[in-house]
Amino acid sequence: MSGTDKTKAGHDLAGPVVILVEPQLGENIGMAARAMGNFALTRMRIVNPRDGWPNEKARIAASGANYIIDDARAFGTLDESISDLNWVAATTARQRDLRKPVLTPEQAIAEMRTRIGRGERCGVLFGRERNGLETGEVAHADVLIMIPVNSRFASLNLAQAVLLTGYEWMRGDAGRSLGRVTTYEKPLEEGLYMGRDRPATKEELIGLFEHLERELEEKGFFNPAHRKTVVSQNLRTLLTRMNATEQEVRTLRGIVATLAQGKGRARRGGE
Amino acid sequence: MSGTDKTKAGHDLAGPVVILVEPQLGENIGMAARAMGNFALTRMRIVNPRDGWPNEKARIAASGANYIIDDARAFGTLDESISDLNWVAATTARQRDLRKPVLTPEQAIAEMRTRIGRGERCGVLFGRERNGLETGEVAHADVLIMIPVNSRFASLNLAQAVLLTGYEWMRGDAGRSLGRVTTYEKPLEEGLYMGRDRPATKEELIGLFEHLERELEEKGFFNPAHRKTVVSQNLRTLLTRMNATEQEVRTLRGIVATLAQGKGRARRGGE
Repeated sequence: MSGTDKTKAGHDLAGPVVILVEPQLGENIGMAARAMGNFALTRMRIVNPRDGWPNEKARIAASGANYIIDDARAFGTLDESISDLNWVAATTARQRDLRKPVLTPEQAIAEMRTRIGRGERCGVLFGRERNGLETGEVAHADVLIMIPVNSRFASLNLAQAVLLTGYEWMRGDAGRSLGRVTTYEKPLEEGLYMGRDRPATKEELIGLFEHLERELEEKGFFNPAHRKTVVSQNLRTLLTRMNATEQEVRTLRGIVATLAQGKGRARRGGE
Repeated sequence: MSGTDKTKAGHDLAGPVVILVEPQLGENIGMAARAMGNFALTRMRIVNPRDGWPNEKARIAASGANYIIDDARAFGTLDESISDLNWVAATTARQRDLRKPVLTPEQAIAEMRTRIGRGERCGVLFGRERNGLETGEVAHADVLIMIPVNSRFASLNLAQAVLLTGYEWMRGDAGRSLGRVTTYEKPLEEGLYMGRDRPATKEELIGLFEHLERELEEKGFFNPAHRKTVVSQNLRTLLTRMNATEQEVRTLRGIVATLAQGKGRARRGGE
């Protein structure tokens, strides 16, 4: 806790990306930016904002934190917004019937700190002001974050959820600086990865999923068609939970290609 | 963290008193009440509110948390408002030249928990929206609380400061009062599966693996043959890491069967 390099620049870069999914009001985007600014988070992404992007109301509401709004990137789909990330947490206000770990903000931030320390890119998804995230959207996340609130009065708004996440980031970081992140404790799961591979990006994982889905579709796996949504979500959850490396995703694509292409040697890589 | 009273009432009563010193806008008092409600704090005191008391705007802004406003007590002076308390912390945004301990919210809440546990009454002072607490007011406090914020963007508002304090109270309390929070203690890899499915047995997992291996063998995936050992091991590792349920293993066997059997409807279950 002492004698560490407290340079600011490094700290700014280290934080998780904040991803707002279909936010409705520009004011709320601006308030979320302020909450980020309070705790030195800087990277905001916005998926399909209702009122378009850029949004002058968001800039005004962000006040001193409009540097965050100015740097924010807008995406048409959730998939695109997380494609370069390695690990994604989804904030949720309610229990869901998904087989995903549910973490406190503290636990999720600790995990992100470990991952960021070894060079991974992490993000946190925040849902719409009214309805939060849809189940299909949550399926892409590695874990859920549930903020422990009073079950009788659980109405956190978007900016508050961002604020508490940012607070955890800075709280856990108190007294440390980014210069030392690399020296953080070795992750427990490190031994799980085969060899020295890097974790797959979401883009690679989504590529695998879409490849598999295409082949299954062609072979009639999703008949009757109404099965498809649920089965697809479950598959995404399952594949996400594997925590695969880039090499493993390629192997799995090779397996899908081999199985789907009938007898004989199949193309092995997924590329 | 175990063997403690999990009744809700006890929790409600145990929290520190929130004392707003000369708040200016009723809306902000209401928002502070909501922030308290989010984290099961219930006792608000108000010192000399600018617009008098009761304040209808505060009630309206409190929305679902107006039970807190209705129970709030107004005092003419700070001294009166804290007279029955044993230990008081004052929130402050800046360093002061006072010989008082400066604690993080986490440390202050930990101290309060200890004191409340032995029957003391604790409170947290929050200053005016514009100027915070005066030095003379802070003198009454046993300690200062400084919320660790980004020094370049430190503009927390009143309700946010109350929110973070309440969050610390409930966060530190996790596992006592909220049944579901205790389950968060599970390690990440183990996860917290929300479905009702039971985890797959190793027998089922090996069945899946052998099924997959058989199909891959037939299609020449393991050529050249010396690849087989390493690839098989890697696949086992990967499938194990999925931490699949019995239902998911059956789905995966259905997928392998579908992909392997060519066009048309394939048998879906693995049985």
